[in-house]
Formats: sequence, structure tokens, C-alpha cells
Amino acid sequence: MSGATSWTGAPIPSGTTVEHLDGGLAAIDGLRFAAAAVGVRDSAHRDPADPDLALLDVGVPVPAAIVTTTNRVLAAPCRVGVEHVTAGPTRAVIVNSGNANACTGAQGLADARDMAAATAAALGCAPEAVVPMSTGVIGVPLPVDRITDAAPRLAAGLAGGPEAAGTLARAMMTTDTRPKQTAVRVRGGPSAVTVAGVAKGAGMIEPAMATMLSVLVTDAELDATTAQQLLRACVDRTFNRISVDSCGSTNDTVLLLATGTAGPLPLELVAAGLDAVAADLAHRIVSDGEGVTRIARLHVAGAPDVATAHRLGRAVAASALFRTALHGSDPNWGRILAAMGASETPFDPDRVRVRFGDVTVCDGGTAVPYDHDAAVALLRAEEVDVEVDLGLGDAAATQLVADLSAGYVHVNAEYTT
Amino acid sequence: MSGATSWTGAPIPSGTTVEHLDGGLAAIDGLRFAAAAVGVRDSAHRDPADPDLALLDVGVPVPAAIVTTTNRVLAAPCRVGVEHVTAGPTRAVIVNSGNANACTGAQGLADARDMAAATAAALGCAPEAVVPMSTGVIGVPLPVDRITDAAPRLAAGLAGGPEAAGTLARAMMTTDTRPKQTAVRVRGGPSAVTVAGVAKGAGMIEPAMATMLSVLVTDAELDATTAQQLLRACVDRTFNRISVDSCGSTNDTVLLLATGTAGPLPLELVAAGLDAVAADLAHRIVSDGEGVTRIARLHVAGAPDVATAHRLGRAVAASALFRTALHGSDPNWGRILAAMGASETPFDPDRVRVRFGDVTVCDGGTAVPYDHDAAVALLRAEEVDVEVDLGLGDAAATQLVADLSAGYVHVNAEYTT
Repeated sequence: MSGATSWTGAPIPSGTTVEHLDGGLAAIDGLRFAAAAVGVRDSAHRDPADPDLALLDVGVPVPAAIVTTTNRVLAAPCRVGVEHVTAGPTRAVIVNSGNANACTGAQGLADARDMAAATAAALGCAPEAVVPMSTGVIGVPLPVDRITDAAPRLAAGLAGGPEAAGTLARAMMTTDTRPKQTAVRVRGGPSAVTVAGVAKGAGMIEPAMATMLSVLVTDAELDATTAQQLLRACVDRTFNRISVDSCGSTNDTVLLLATGTAGPLPLELVAAGLDAVAADLAHRIVSDGEGVTRIARLHVAGAPDVATAHRLGRAVAASALFRTALHGSDPNWGRILAAMGASETPFDPDRVRVRFGDVTVCDGGTAVPYDHDAAVALLRAEEVDVEVDLGLGDAAATQLVADLSAGYVHVNAEYTT
Repeated sequence: MSGATSWTGAPIPSGTTVEHLDGGLAAIDGLRFAAAAVGVRDSAHRDPADPDLALLDVGVPVPAAIVTTTNRVLAAPCRVGVEHVTAGPTRAVIVNSGNANACTGAQGLADARDMAAATAAALGCAPEAVVPMSTGVIGVPLPVDRITDAAPRLAAGLAGGPEAAGTLARAMMTTDTRPKQTAVRVRGGPSAVTVAGVAKGAGMIEPAMATMLSVLVTDAELDATTAQQLLRACVDRTFNRISVDSCGSTNDTVLLLATGTAGPLPLELVAAGLDAVAADLAHRIVSDGEGVTRIARLHVAGAPDVATAHRLGRAVAASALFRTALHGSDPNWGRILAAMGASETPFDPDRVRVRFGDVTVCDGGTAVPYDHDAAVALLRAEEVDVEVDLGLGDAAATQLVADLSAGYVHVNAEYTT
């Protein structure tokens, strides 16, 4: 496994190996994919011929789990997705980009149900076996006819293999510049689990998720309750530890499907596979965030508990001043202390140590002499390590934080109109 | 009074008139000012010949009040300022720009005390009668000798009048592009109060204040306890209702001095004068915020209580997506709902109405048909009205929110190094 997933700090169980696989979702046996350009997305960012609607079909209903945004303004597809996963096994996912179907009232709910129902009719399964997902502009009615009309065509065109999986990954994109898929095989003793995933991100990326959609699939045999527990824990360690712009979205959804073809496996092994895939996808989301030129692996250590480490890390991640300093390769550690101090989470400023890479710039809450040029050079890398040690305990939390560039402003000042 | 101060929504007591005065702090009888370039500030943003140290002298110790940042990382001059104001009357303020004397440990505290003591020695008063203020870079030791060495020179050069007051206003500036002063006379029946103020702002501007220093002076006779109550209430209605970048600073200070030459006055009249001056200075701070090209008067109404209105308004003000949409004149109201929904403050999304000026774009939490071109045209103004009605009660809170431009990124990616 590449170093790209090491940022979460989650240990890989001893005696296990993680092998990266090609092909994204196609690494899981039996999955089929279809995509089409149906005109839901009307964006200057993309070619109208690019697909904006995609279908993932497992072939049979399988146990599933779902985690959605904590945003109080919950989009219709998130509501319907939770309903359907709760109702029983899931066979398929229908996903559109270009329209979030959020803030769309009763009509939006009906549209999300219609999306699922039309897909189910085309596949010949129960509507509850289909999960709808949407991403894009908020507050615009979904042109659902374009989706329901296309459903039979998508179902007829389902195909397996990496090329079809890649088309699905591209159909989910909004301001993403790259499709995002990953797959791993984790072996431990005589067992091996395969986990694959696809995601889209770009903006509104923040702990508690974001305009982030992801589907993870494993060949492990899991019951729905266990799948939900594993997914919740995985999301908390991965997708909930990234921030592009501290803006939490209305539509975030992570879905886990367990096809079961590999039979029952040690849960520790499955969890390691889920973490590896989700961490890698989360990293890809931040790397491809709107206007992102540099990422900080922000490690808050020495905390009395993980929640404190996480909350203070989020305060730093939300600071426009920290993120612009990161953009400018500026070792301006005072902005880190100021951001934590402005939060409501207690800590002792006089015990804080800050390091950029191996250069300590602040100890006991005050400046220490350091090699400024060396710190700037470290901060010129594409990924930089920032460690904030609170000096209070043994707990820690790491998150990935994007810089704030003029490119972010340009993308977001022009997105809708 | 110009319409510029009407944004707070605070009513002017009936039967009173507010007259704008020229001359800034010089509108108050007896104040004297001095400033010098002593080399504390070493910034690419300013001419080294520009003053970076200034002295305000009332001539005699007078009752004072002080409000400082709520940031847990409290700068040394804030600590010493509170100590000194609490200890007794205040005669003078010594203020430097270019170095915040924050995160500077025990040495920083000693330096802030030395700043005050050297000034007091030059003026012939008790050290506790001098309030030190600092603004600038965090975490760099204050070159205090340059300040203490200059104190006798400043004391010898004190002068009254608008020109001297203007030099003090300029000496406080960091990335401000304009000095900020205002003065009013409020008349009610036979009484008249004069209030004048000076401020600096630019970045780290956020409710709970910011890298914001302000000195307000009134000729009303007030005891220290009453002055503190009036100042606290005034700050909550004005300086705590503005946001440039949601970054709360370590150094914010608002000081109120009551010279008493006008004798005792109705407190309602004094409060109106303080509000008028503070609201105008707060408005100037946002207008001159780093990279600011447009301001929203964000009015959250229909709230069950003012605290809810204020918290939800802060959530919107903190949203990079809302602020970039404001920059792009984009009526993207979904970002407002998403920002409120991602906060921890409860409301009912299905009751929310959003208006840009007189154009309603969302009602009952969903889109309503509106004239898109008219909304965009409204949002092209330098100041725009955004109303979010929660549909839950009668309470409201207004704040001034700056847009997020590429200019902000440029200033803040390059500030220290």
C-alpha cells in the first residue's frame, strides 16, 4: 500500500498485508456499471457529453450500511437512502451529478423515490433495493424525468470491468478534476478480504463529511448490523478527518455494500480493508479539492482525549489565516494558536509545542529560535506535517487540511450562475 | 448621521439627534497625540517612515472601561491593559503596530509592563494609568527598547488637533489601507454628549472581535462601573457583529475613556453616542477588511431569541462558500441553508425564507421562482441586504459580513515572511 493512506495513524493489524489492486470497483467480482449523459448537469466546468448519471448493480440484493451528513438541511436522496437501506438489502445505486436535490421540499422527496423506483423497475427488483444519490447545486428542482427516462437504457447497458467502473467514477464528478477509485486486498493468515471504493469530492469538504459521495464494496460476508458498525467507525477515522473548506454539505453519503462472495472473515481484517480504501479516497478528495495546491497532515497530539484533539484540529482546519499561510509556505504558527484559542475547546496555551516537519517553532506557547529557511523549505512540499502537541495527555488525532488559494475563490465565486 | 451606521438596527432614542463631527478624536476637548516611526513594524505593506508607535494622552487620569478578546490565547498587552484599567483611572494609551506581543510568554508580559512604565515615567503618572496596546505578528518578541527609548520623545511632542489625531490613527494600522476615526455629538433635550473613536482592523475580524484595536472617548462623566457596563453592551451590538474572515484574534481591545468635561448626562444619550461611533468604526473595519470588495448586511430574523439569530448568522458569515458567492454576486441561497444546517444551532429548515434585497429566492426551505437577473444586479452593489427569516419567533440580529476574494488570499499568504 502506498504511503498515501498512512495519514490516519490507524494501525494495520500485525501479520496482515495490504495489497493495492487495479481496476477500482471492478476489483470486486460481479459488479456491473453503466453511465450516460442525460442533461442533469448544466455546468461550465464540464463537457455536456460527459456522463452525469450512473448505475451500479450488484446483481442481487446484499447487506448494506449507510452514513449520511449531519447537516440539519438533509437532502432528499439522503433521506430516501437511509429509508431504503434500513428497509432491507440493497442491490443497486443510481447516482447523478449536477443537481443535489437538496432544499427541494416534498417534490424533491418524490423525485428521489422516483429515481429509485424507475431504476428498480428496469432491474426487476424492489424500489427499496435501490439507493439514490445526488450531488451538485442546491435548491434547484431535479429534472427527474431525464433520470427515469434513462433508467431502462442504463440497465440494458450494464457491463463489468475497469472501463465501465471508471465511467461511473467520472459520472459522479462535479468540480472534481479526477475520478477517484481505489481497491485493496488485505490478507491475514488464511483469510483475504477485498474492498473497493469510488468517491467524489471537490468542495464543501469538512469533518462531518461534505459534498462527498462514496460507495464502498467488500466481498466479505457481513450482516447489516455489523456492516453499519464497521462503516460508522471507518468514516469517523477517515472521511470525517478531512477538510477542504470547513463547509459541511447537505448531501454527503457513504454507502457500504457487502457482496459476501468471500464468505465470513475476521472483522479486524475487514475493518483494515475498509480503512485503507476510505483513507485513500479521503486523501484523493482533499488532493483534488477546489483550488488545493498543498495539504497539511495536521497532527494534534498530547491531548487529554481524542475528541479534544479532533476539535482543536478542526478549529485550525477552519482558519482561513492558517490555510492561507499554508498556501504561502509561511511558518506562521501564531495563527495555529490563535485559531485554537478562538475555539470553545479548553487547552493550556502555555504548554503548546508546534512543529513543522522536524522544525520546532514554538514551545511552551512561545517562540523558539529556529531555522526559518528550513521551515519555509519544508512548507513548500505538496504535503507537509504540522504537529501541535498540547502537552496534556496521550491522545491524538490527525486530519488532512487543504490550503486556501485564489483558485478556490475563483471556482466558488462562479459555480452556479 | 450617515446611513452607514444604520446596520445594527439599534434604535436611536426618540427626540435625539446625531450630528457627525470632523476631526476624529480631536473632537474631544483636551486630548493630545503623538506618533513616531521607531522600527517595530518591518512590513512590506508599509513605508518604514510611516509611524508605528503612538501615544494618546488625556492629561489627567479618568474613569475607563476595557473589553478584550475572548481568545484563550490572550496577548500580553491585553492582560496588562485589563490589570491597569481595573487598578484605577487611565490617563494615556501607548499603542504599537507591527508586533502583537502575543505568544511571547513571561518576557512578553514584562515587555507590555515596560511599555506602560516608560510612558508613565515620561508623562509623570503612575504606570497603572497607562494602557498598552499592540497589533501585528504573533509569536515574535517585542523589540520593546525601541518603544521605551521613544517614550520621552513622544511625550515631549504631544499636540492637539485633527492632524495629530490622524497621525495616531495611521500609526495603529497594519494591513489597513485607511485610518479609521469618527466622532458624533448626540443631543437630547438640554443635554449633548460627544463621543469620538479610532480603530484599526483589516484581518482576523470576527464576532468576539479580532485584530481590532479601538479607543473610544466621551466627554460624559461616568464612573468606571457604569463605563464598563455601557462599553460591554455597545461592543456586543457593534464590534461583535462583524466578520471579515471568522478568525478571532489574540489582541482585540476596545478601551473607553470618559473625560467627564460635559458633566453627568442621561445614560441613554451616552449609549446612543457610543453605539453610533462604534457602529461606524465597525463598518469601516469591514469595508477595509483584507481583500474585501463587497459587504452583506446579513439580517437573521424570525428567531426564537437573539442568541439563536446571532449564532446562525455567524455560521453563515463563517462559510467560505457563502462568502465566495457574495464575491461573485451569485444568489446561491442553498449555501446559506447548508451553512446554517452544518452548525449546531437548531432551526427548522422547512420554515426558512431567504431574500436578497426585496427578491425572495427561497420560502418554506425550498426554491421559489424569482427574477435571477434582478437578484444578480442587487448582489453587484457594494453593500447588499441578505435576510434570512427563520419563521420561528420575533428576535433578530444583523451582522456585517465581508466577501472572500482572491485579494484576501494574496494578503494572507504573504503577511509574515
